[in-house]
Amino acid sequence: MFPNADSDCLRLILVAPRNPLNIGAAARAMSNFGFFHLRVVNPYELAFREARSAVGAAPLLARAEEFKSLAEAVEDCTLVVGTTAVGQRQLQHPVRRLDQAAPLVRKHLAGSRVALLFGSEKRGLSNEDLSHCHWLLRIPTREEHRSMNLGQAVAVCLYELAREPQASVRPKKHVAATAADLERLTALLLDALRTSGYLKSRPSASSKRPSAAPTEDKIRRLVHRLRLSATDAELTLGIFRQILWKSRQDKDRTQ
Amino acid sequence: MFPNADSDCLRLILVAPRNPLNIGAAARAMSNFGFFHLRVVNPYELAFREARSAVGAAPLLARAEEFKSLAEAVEDCTLVVGTTAVGQRQLQHPVRRLDQAAPLVRKHLAGSRVALLFGSEKRGLSNEDLSHCHWLLRIPTREEHRSMNLGQAVAVCLYELAREPQASVRPKKHVAATAADLERLTALLLDALRTSGYLKSRPSASSKRPSAAPTEDKIRRLVHRLRLSATDAELTLGIFRQILWKSRQDKDRTQ
Repeated sequence: MFPNADSDCLRLILVAPRNPLNIGAAARAMSNFGFFHLRVVNPYELAFREARSAVGAAPLLARAEEFKSLAEAVEDCTLVVGTTAVGQRQLQHPVRRLDQAAPLVRKHLAGSRVALLFGSEKRGLSNEDLSHCHWLLRIPTREEHRSMNLGQAVAVCLYELAREPQASVRPKKHVAATAADLERLTALLLDALRTSGYLKSRPSASSKRPSAAPTEDKIRRLVHRLRLSATDAELTLGIFRQILWKSRQDKDRTQ
Repeated sequence: MFPNADSDCLRLILVAPRNPLNIGAAARAMSNFGFFHLRVVNPYELAFREARSAVGAAPLLARAEEFKSLAEAVEDCTLVVGTTAVGQRQLQHPVRRLDQAAPLVRKHLAGSRVALLFGSEKRGLSNEDLSHCHWLLRIPTREEHRSMNLGQAVAVCLYELAREPQASVRPKKHVAATAADLERLTALLLDALRTSGYLKSRPSASSKRPSAAPTEDKIRRLVHRLRLSATDAELTLGIFRQILWKSRQDKDRTQ
């Protein structure tokens, strides 16, 4: 069982949690099952402070890292997995059942960092959050009552991940691109799409038009689906930088 | 997965629970995983009342049966399994790890009633409680932090009981792009690379320069590595058609 070098590669990320008890419960389950790296994105400040100062709060809660955006929180991870109850939303991602997802996550943990995301208690992960994910995981709950309590969902996922200690550590062939590379690629691609007129609007940096977001998410999902290796990400980034540079040069000349 | 006739044979028994939130959490996990019969032995009265009257309390909580003694609560069951963190106490019972215990419990559930006991938050099951058990079950937690939160322990146990070893949910079918699509995409991408100056040479259609071939192969291999679905191939083709059209238009204007 964990903890071992592999479990040390997991980053458990709570996105916008609102209830201090749930944050504390997540931390406790992490300690129970041997995972020690908690990240919190944009938490309800009071809740986070309260959880941290609770009697018996785990040391790992004191060491939890706080981030302003999910993009920053997953930056150093090469696999980003979201959890979902698969509700009314039509999901654009492959969804794997926890027992089928766990071996894949464990395999990845053998070589590199994995982010496991849990959304807020009320709404789960937003579409924008989901667009950062390579794929999704669901705990097989009853159709009539899918949605689990946050602390309980964390406990069940970590129980399943901690199972089967001797998961073979195979030499990794595929060195996946980091989330930061994929984010850079998404931004470049969006730029190219705007410059080429494939996308009509070019939202200003300060105030994005609401209509831009779904397309941005769509493109980000596409980039994630490609499962690029680190080398291919670099190659692709180079391609789009050149395309963009050239099209801007042409544009300048025509103006 | 549950619920089915078998899950209907489980009696989940909380012995002397003290925290209304834990009682509520246990009920929620039961509903999530399809177990509907909750029994409570000698609860802290205020906690039980509070849990029952909580907003959104599960109907199964309203139907929970209350008992004055554990003996009465397990009377109609033919297998009684206690849960334990196996702490300092010397246990007189066989203890099975959850993943090994679950198949035995499931087998028993096929024919008769099983009681699954959880002790109070502070002390777990007493020696007297344990004396009612046929054997014990423990969730494999880290030695340095064995004791789980009650609601989380219930969730993990029920997840494992509801697990279907043989059931395999097929992941959403990946309809791969055809080789023809990938070839079209390769050609378009090469065109875009030449137009943008990423590739220097533009071999004539009739006689390709020998130096072009390795790059062409490299790009083709890249396109194949992406393992695009048919839909994504179409999306990507559209993107490059537009980029190419635009860059040609810009070029014509500058000439």
